[in-house]
Amino acid sequence: MDLNEHKPKAIDLSHHLSNVSKARKTSPLKGLQRYLGREGMVQMAGGLPSPAYFPFSELSAEGLIPDSFPLSSTTSSSSAFSWLFKLFQGLKTQEKTTHLTIPKYPVNPNDLNLAVSLQYGLAKGLPQLQKILDEFVLKVYKPAYADSVTLIHAGNTDGWYKCVQTFCNPGDGVLVSEWTYPSAIASMAPYNVKPVAVPMDGQGMSSAGLRKVLSEWDEGATSMTRPGLMYIVPVGQNPTGATMCVKRKQEIYDICVEFDVLIAEDDPYYFLQEGPYVRKTERSASVQFNSDEEYLSHLAPSFLSIDYQGRVIRLDSFSKTISPGCRLGWFTCNPIFAERLERQGETSTQAPCGYGQSLVTVLLLNWGYDGYVRWLRALGSQYQLRRNFILDCLGDEFHLKLDYETSGVWSGCDTYRAYDKAPGDATFNEKHAVFKPMFSLVPPTSGMFIWLQLHLDNHPSFNCDEETLEMQLWVDLAEAGVLFAPGWMFSAKESNTDAPGKGHFRMSFSNAEFEDMRKAIATFGAVIRKFFEKH
Amino acid sequence: MDLNEHKPKAIDLSHHLSNVSKARKTSPLKGLQRYLGREGMVQMAGGLPSPAYFPFSELSAEGLIPDSFPLSSTTSSSSAFSWLFKLFQGLKTQEKTTHLTIPKYPVNPNDLNLAVSLQYGLAKGLPQLQKILDEFVLKVYKPAYADSVTLIHAGNTDGWYKCVQTFCNPGDGVLVSEWTYPSAIASMAPYNVKPVAVPMDGQGMSSAGLRKVLSEWDEGATSMTRPGLMYIVPVGQNPTGATMCVKRKQEIYDICVEFDVLIAEDDPYYFLQEGPYVRKTERSASVQFNSDEEYLSHLAPSFLSIDYQGRVIRLDSFSKTISPGCRLGWFTCNPIFAERLERQGETSTQAPCGYGQSLVTVLLLNWGYDGYVRWLRALGSQYQLRRNFILDCLGDEFHLKLDYETSGVWSGCDTYRAYDKAPGDATFNEKHAVFKPMFSLVPPTSGMFIWLQLHLDNHPSFNCDEETLEMQLWVDLAEAGVLFAPGWMFSAKESNTDAPGKGHFRMSFSNAEFEDMRKAIATFGAVIRKFFEKH
Repeated sequence: MDLNEHKPKAIDLSHHLSNVSKARKTSPLKGLQRYLGREGMVQMAGGLPSPAYFPFSELSAEGLIPDSFPLSSTTSSSSAFSWLFKLFQGLKTQEKTTHLTIPKYPVNPNDLNLAVSLQYGLAKGLPQLQKILDEFVLKVYKPAYADSVTLIHAGNTDGWYKCVQTFCNPGDGVLVSEWTYPSAIASMAPYNVKPVAVPMDGQGMSSAGLRKVLSEWDEGATSMTRPGLMYIVPVGQNPTGATMCVKRKQEIYDICVEFDVLIAEDDPYYFLQEGPYVRKTERSASVQFNSDEEYLSHLAPSFLSIDYQGRVIRLDSFSKTISPGCRLGWFTCNPIFAERLERQGETSTQAPCGYGQSLVTVLLLNWGYDGYVRWLRALGSQYQLRRNFILDCLGDEFHLKLDYETSGVWSGCDTYRAYDKAPGDATFNEKHAVFKPMFSLVPPTSGMFIWLQLHLDNHPSFNCDEETLEMQLWVDLAEAGVLFAPGWMFSAKESNTDAPGKGHFRMSFSNAEFEDMRKAIATFGAVIRKFFEKH
Repeated sequence: MDLNEHKPKAIDLSHHLSNVSKARKTSPLKGLQRYLGREGMVQMAGGLPSPAYFPFSELSAEGLIPDSFPLSSTTSSSSAFSWLFKLFQGLKTQEKTTHLTIPKYPVNPNDLNLAVSLQYGLAKGLPQLQKILDEFVLKVYKPAYADSVTLIHAGNTDGWYKCVQTFCNPGDGVLVSEWTYPSAIASMAPYNVKPVAVPMDGQGMSSAGLRKVLSEWDEGATSMTRPGLMYIVPVGQNPTGATMCVKRKQEIYDICVEFDVLIAEDDPYYFLQEGPYVRKTERSASVQFNSDEEYLSHLAPSFLSIDYQGRVIRLDSFSKTISPGCRLGWFTCNPIFAERLERQGETSTQAPCGYGQSLVTVLLLNWGYDGYVRWLRALGSQYQLRRNFILDCLGDEFHLKLDYETSGVWSGCDTYRAYDKAPGDATFNEKHAVFKPMFSLVPPTSGMFIWLQLHLDNHPSFNCDEETLEMQLWVDLAEAGVLFAPGWMFSAKESNTDAPGKGHFRMSFSNAEFEDMRKAIATFGAVIRKFFEKH
């Protein structure tokens, strides 16, 4: 079955290409290419060393089997933990692995081999990997147009940097959420490309906010043409953890069509979708989905699935699903953009590292599509386990009072407000209501982060200088041995004015060991209680 | 012994930083850094996945031992070939290898391990690799100033791209040799940074030519400020194969001091120094050097060794010494430049791939400094063998008449002119003198390339359109199954006017199997003879 049947082709959006991108030369290889692949040619054109001089005659790896982790995160949590702890302690005898090997020379010409993968290669990367990505994108993200293309890059930071070079001229603005990934802005800033903050709500970027920014754009007042590019992290948003439903994506997409905006969908946390948080006491122990297909169909759809025009540049990364050290990911976009991005690759990174490419490829070939989906599904469960664990810890440490937010960034969300809880206090009662909450949070449904809103205006010595208080608390906490990320790092605006009296921390639950997270939350409790008692 | 004792420190050259580079933010990690390394901290700031989720529990490799290749390239060449052929045929049972392993978790905290090397890392890369590079640079290149710094990058193409962003503003010019690596220019072009061609002679860039370009610079006529950056490949120059002696480097360096020019020394072929070509009949069979120290002292010194101010940015690559697929190399430069280059890395490539980094590192740790030098020394011999082989083939196929060049690009060089040679003609004689040479070459003393100057003005239908004739011959040759690189690709000027009637081919002897090279030269002979007979 041709999965692209009956789909439209991408429209011409080449007017979005930057001056830099338009000025890139066509590959000088182009004239040679018809001869390069021809059988029996003696290749004396390129400066390629002989593979005889590569000092590796074989690479191999012990690759985990796809069902290394369970599909349920809620069975007996204590046994799941002890099982995990064994992993953390490096008892790899417990791990089931497959021995994967890449020889220098292939037995069959199409086999993975070091003579090719450690050689200079096209910026497109290994054909075996390209094929895997093409299949994966078609089946999982279901692009709405027929001629989408995948192209590897050296991780999403590199991918986004290449987008900035390809789509932005100096002085341009890029639409971003008001709280966003700092590195995305740091990539733009040196080229005088400026973030244009769009208000957020509990689902991330607000569509009403976006329309307002675009429809009321004033070139005179901003000294900037209306932005033609959006940077967005729609799943497990960094730092707020917000995830967009398909309705919101459709609204945003339609506005982008109306105002001719490209969408760079940076989606590293796509497979860390954890579902709604249920309190420990109400949690049931069951596998969430009956099949991989059912699992995939429950994931928030990518912008690609509604992009009938080809205005989405999706950035996928292996950093969260295989390992960050791969520095490997891929674009999915229309063929005109892909060609320009490939040219840019040729004169900077070239193809991503062949060691990483071939080891990731040999693993994915061994797993197959189904094995990789099985891996991703279990990975999601592991992050659900971690998300649940840290929220449970917070619930043990603080009184978490459920509230429904009607305004501000979390408008429309079930919000937990954290109150002081004396040891032994089991329930929230009248005694606590006289106090004010120290911080609030919305349990994330995806990703690695919990975004804490600090109620600094409830601090006895609050004098409207949120940043100073935020950093005072941050330093207190760091001195006590716990590192969160301070909120100021993530602000897309010069100063955050919409939430007076608020500070923020981003707390990551992706990395620390479970018992360390529990201790860290206890430390946090002690530090923040002392902080709010200060006069 | 402190190898940097008594050396001066780098001078302040920060006025060379581009606007883009100056606008880069200091790393946001800086505020966190004092806590990141502290013992016992619970790290919940970054979005780092747990290494438990990395699907590799071990990487391993069969690494060739350092003395896998002989030190002499001239012993019994037939046996050396058959030995090589075994390698080419993939009989890896003949190879002596060491089993190298990288576990997920280290036994000792400082051991290489996947939990660190497949994790997000600083753009500086693995500390074990950094240490190896620091030692190597100090011992081998002997920088003339005390505070030089090494910083890894993702291969020299990436390194040069980062130099362009760090040192050039749009509209700037960069000094390059009149024939140069096309990708270096392709990296600059989109940013409106233009090549300024400097005349060459048999040693590469001419110092007299450089002085003339700089001292006669006319901002009005060129609409360009005088260039402040030079791009140079001083060893085995691409494409001409020329190698600079230290006297020439000193002259060029002094001119760069006088005119305040930075030098980007792109030196991938440094360890492919093959020495002068000696005809087959006159060649003696002996190991060239008595020790590794003697070998190193005979290599053309790097610009670093005369750079007492810190104005050289040296680009080293593992592409030619380990494998191109590493996408791994390093800058050596002054600390101010290194800091800016590192910031650029943080927002684009981040650290180069951890799979490649750790596999290269485990190999180099196994080999040690002495083992790596032994490997490099033998590699040089292998390239000498290849260089000798292809020139011997050319000598078999053509009458190569030695001439001393007194003008033009090869002024001061012993040049071989290639005349037609009927089968069985052993020596050049009067009979051939009535013919004109078809091409000339200077035997390279380093690198991978032979640069052929085609005497197109001796072609019967020559009408001053060199490029057309060059490409006609190139297509004839490609159709016959041999790929050289056409000369036009390497011109730094819009049109090459200094050698009327000349065309060029770059012939690489680095990759093809020996028998294929022999066949290719025979094919080239047949094709070029037929070409020069055309009316």
